[in-house]
Amino acid sequence: MKLTVKEIAEKIHARVAGNSFTVITGVSSFDNADASDITFAGDASFLSRLNQTRAGAVIVPDDGMYEKNSHPCLLMTANPRRAFFELVAHFHPAPASKPGISPLAVIGKNCVLGKGVTIAPHVVIEDEVVIKDHVQIMPHVFIGKGCVIKEHTTIKPNVTVMDGTCLGKHGIIHSGSVIGSDGYGFVQDGESHFKLSHTGHVIIGDHVEIGACNTIDRGTLGVTRIGNGVKTDNQVHIAHNVSIGDHTLVVAQVGIAGSTRIGKQTIIAGKAGISGHLTIGNHVIVGPYAGVSSSVPDNQIVSGIPHMPHKTWLKVVNILGRLPGMRKTLMAFEKRLDALERIIQKPELP
Amino acid sequence: MKLTVKEIAEKIHARVAGNSFTVITGVSSFDNADASDITFAGDASFLSRLNQTRAGAVIVPDDGMYEKNSHPCLLMTANPRRAFFELVAHFHPAPASKPGISPLAVIGKNCVLGKGVTIAPHVVIEDEVVIKDHVQIMPHVFIGKGCVIKEHTTIKPNVTVMDGTCLGKHGIIHSGSVIGSDGYGFVQDGESHFKLSHTGHVIIGDHVEIGACNTIDRGTLGVTRIGNGVKTDNQVHIAHNVSIGDHTLVVAQVGIAGSTRIGKQTIIAGKAGISGHLTIGNHVIVGPYAGVSSSVPDNQIVSGIPHMPHKTWLKVVNILGRLPGMRKTLMAFEKRLDALERIIQKPELP
Amino acid sequence: MKLTVKEIAEKIHARVAGNSFTVITGVSSFDNADASDITFAGDASFLSRLNQTRAGAVIVPDDGMYEKNSHPCLLMTANPRRAFFELVAHFHPAPASKPGISPLAVIGKNCVLGKGVTIAPHVVIEDEVVIKDHVQIMPHVFIGKGCVIKEHTTIKPNVTVMDGTCLGKHGIIHSGSVIGSDGYGFVQDGESHFKLSHTGHVIIGDHVEIGACNTIDRGTLGVTRIGNGVKTDNQVHIAHNVSIGDHTLVVAQVGIAGSTRIGKQTIIAGKAGISGHLTIGNHVIVGPYAGVSSSVPDNQIVSGIPHMPHKTWLKVVNILGRLPGMRKTLMAFEKRLDALERIIQKPELP
Repeated sequence: MKLTVKEIAEKIHARVAGNSFTVITGVSSFDNADASDITFAGDASFLSRLNQTRAGAVIVPDDGMYEKNSHPCLLMTANPRRAFFELVAHFHPAPASKPGISPLAVIGKNCVLGKGVTIAPHVVIEDEVVIKDHVQIMPHVFIGKGCVIKEHTTIKPNVTVMDGTCLGKHGIIHSGSVIGSDGYGFVQDGESHFKLSHTGHVIIGDHVEIGACNTIDRGTLGVTRIGNGVKTDNQVHIAHNVSIGDHTLVVAQVGIAGSTRIGKQTIIAGKAGISGHLTIGNHVIVGPYAGVSSSVPDNQIVSGIPHMPHKTWLKVVNILGRLPGMRKTLMAFEKRLDALERIIQKPELP
Repeated sequence: MKLTVKEIAEKIHARVAGNSFTVITGVSSFDNADASDITFAGDASFLSRLNQTRAGAVIVPDDGMYEKNSHPCLLMTANPRRAFFELVAHFHPAPASKPGISPLAVIGKNCVLGKGVTIAPHVVIEDEVVIKDHVQIMPHVFIGKGCVIKEHTTIKPNVTVMDGTCLGKHGIIHSGSVIGSDGYGFVQDGESHFKLSHTGHVIIGDHVEIGACNTIDRGTLGVTRIGNGVKTDNQVHIAHNVSIGDHTLVVAQVGIAGSTRIGKQTIIAGKAGISGHLTIGNHVIVGPYAGVSSSVPDNQIVSGIPHMPHKTWLKVVNILGRLPGMRKTLMAFEKRLDALERIIQKPELP
Repeated sequence: MKLTVKEIAEKIHARVAGNSFTVITGVSSFDNADASDITFAGDASFLSRLNQTRAGAVIVPDDGMYEKNSHPCLLMTANPRRAFFELVAHFHPAPASKPGISPLAVIGKNCVLGKGVTIAPHVVIEDEVVIKDHVQIMPHVFIGKGCVIKEHTTIKPNVTVMDGTCLGKHGIIHSGSVIGSDGYGFVQDGESHFKLSHTGHVIIGDHVEIGACNTIDRGTLGVTRIGNGVKTDNQVHIAHNVSIGDHTLVVAQVGIAGSTRIGKQTIIAGKAGISGHLTIGNHVIVGPYAGVSSSVPDNQIVSGIPHMPHKTWLKVVNILGRLPGMRKTLMAFEKRLDALERIIQKPELP
């Protein structure tokens, strides 16, 4: 595959400074690129050394601070990182799946399959499932009764989708994930725990990507809902009746307990835990390892166990390692106070 | 499906205040119920507004505090939540699995299968496995050599049960879980790590529910044991030779390291970690995110990293965010002490 | 199976003190052993009570401190634990898998299969995969296009290995693990998140053991690399472009964020989290539950959230529970200072 710099510039809506006829045959990182590669310089750490890459062309920010003539061929655009990864997708297109239903798949009664659907060997689909156009289901996937999988969604190998789940359009569910399992709901009954029937289900919006080995439980009575454009990393746990707003990011190993509502465009960083029945607002950032034990309003940044404003946490963190010193100081003050009190009280004695 | 309030009252052992002939056709939550639904009011937040639900009947506690005549049809019983979920199970019965052995399942030599067993397509069962009556094994489950699965247990899709595991009666193993994998046992050998043979196995009691994507390792030499009535949430890790007492609850993303013993009726809250070779007593509560690094006697409530009595942790938590202020105060005291000492020592100078 | 103590001594390179002709037929733990068993005493807690085991023979350290004649048959060797587990493997040999390709496996085009390969039922292998001699692939495993699995490696049931992954020799991948899934890489695009194409892959060295339900993401552009002899416990998450040095141990539920480099012979204890783009040195120990937010040089021991030198953390931990007391002391000092200042300033008034 070959593109001239001019062709690339049109593709990514960039202006060219340099030779538009340079031929590019691949993409690479800044330091590994060859003369036939294009790369990108997303920030000052790269822009300050444009003369050090061997890349034939470099994508730079429109408003980037860099020395003129530091590289013979620059493409200027608003979002170099995004533009670069459009080219990665162009030079390394995902292998086209061959649509078709494997004779080794098991498909239940009254299922509706759209056009261009791929169902791999050893897939099991139960009754009354609706699979829309261009859905791709890879090996060893289980899809329970009455599920709906909307257009252009891909389910990777070894995924479990329990009955009644609805997956939106253009989604990706990575391997090992379990969607629609029963929530953790019991009621104490003497010394044992009586299982609550879980009659709810999971609804996932469009353009959602669920990482590997996620667990997303169905609602106890109602719905567990994942909004449009949500992206979860690996090993995320989302309990029954949770609701996550559009375009929120949930990083690896996060756990969200039952019935908690999370707003839009929020970020929950890696390993954070959020207790049940809380409301986390829109545009919130929850820091890594945070333990969130009460609701968080819109636009807050919180960190720590238990969570507190991020600025406070930064100060606390700074002090934690100094606690032994503070304790010593405190004990020294005790002595100094004792001494002062003795001196001052002495004159009063006589 | 239809039941009169009278029929429901008999079913859940409740007394009726109101019209026993009201016909109920479904279950719903307090705020979403219609006139044909039954709902429940488990605590004061609902009992105080019984006049606000449109439900045809409401289950309330025997000893509940609520205004007389605030709802035209009440059912009084000891445990309204439990009673309500019995009705949920009645109105939404789990779809009956069709017993039978799929011709697409692979079953080894010398296996013993009971009555009413369901083995789905693409299940693989190795040699010498015993499967008792009414066990249900869903697609893509692997069951290793010599396992025993007792009566009425259900194994959901994509579960792995390694050789020698024994699962009790009336259990549920949710999707993605791995039971009986090798423990993490190595012995240092120069700069590398020599793998210990894991010849132990896993024994799980009756009425146990294991959440999705759990990992429960076999014993190195002996047994990893999960007691009767234990319920684990999703993504729980239980290492080799751990023992968990009857009716203990283990919430999502908890990790329990090797050879630790946990008592009966204990609760380990979400994301807590418990170090190896400890003894955690009966009726203990370990708080969320806690890091338990030493043994905990019966009836204790502990929280924090590292764990401490929960009451102390509540105080510590309250102070953490004030540490920057405390540090400032401490530094201010230094100055005040210096000043006092200067003043007091001055008179002595002349 | 029977061995005399003399035969055992030759096998594990031990010296015998006692009757070399004792016949041993099994292995057991110190407290459960019978006269026909061999056991081991690895440290003082066992060496001090050698007379309490019923074992026919006990393996003890070369340089062990114990009373002479405290047991009638001792075998002295440098590493008793390792020697003992060699005997465990001898007395309980792993069941030999029967090499062969199941007719129920699906194998793509242009695959190369070595000698003595076992491919179980319901395995799916895509095109252009190379499987070397004596590899064993258990049921429900998926292996993507172009993977290479080297000699003597075993892949347990329900594992997913995505396209382009390379697994080294003599490895074990436990059930539920996902290797080579896309990393968590997006670029902000207005209010939504644009997915980066992940064209990198995963390379795993020789003698590596990956626990159950691990997730190891492919590189975004380059490689995620796991060194030789690395052992991971269950539920470990390793993000895109991470590199882990030889013989490093990663304990359960650890998360390592993108592009972080970890050195050789390092230990990351359970539930620790390591932020992205860091460098963790060789021979480092990261304590359990630690949150590592900056790089750590060689040979350091760190603990805490955020991490600090382990010795400091031990002091901090010791103080945390005393913070309420410290705060009270501080408030008492305030009063004492106020009082002192009033007294001292009074004389100046007149």
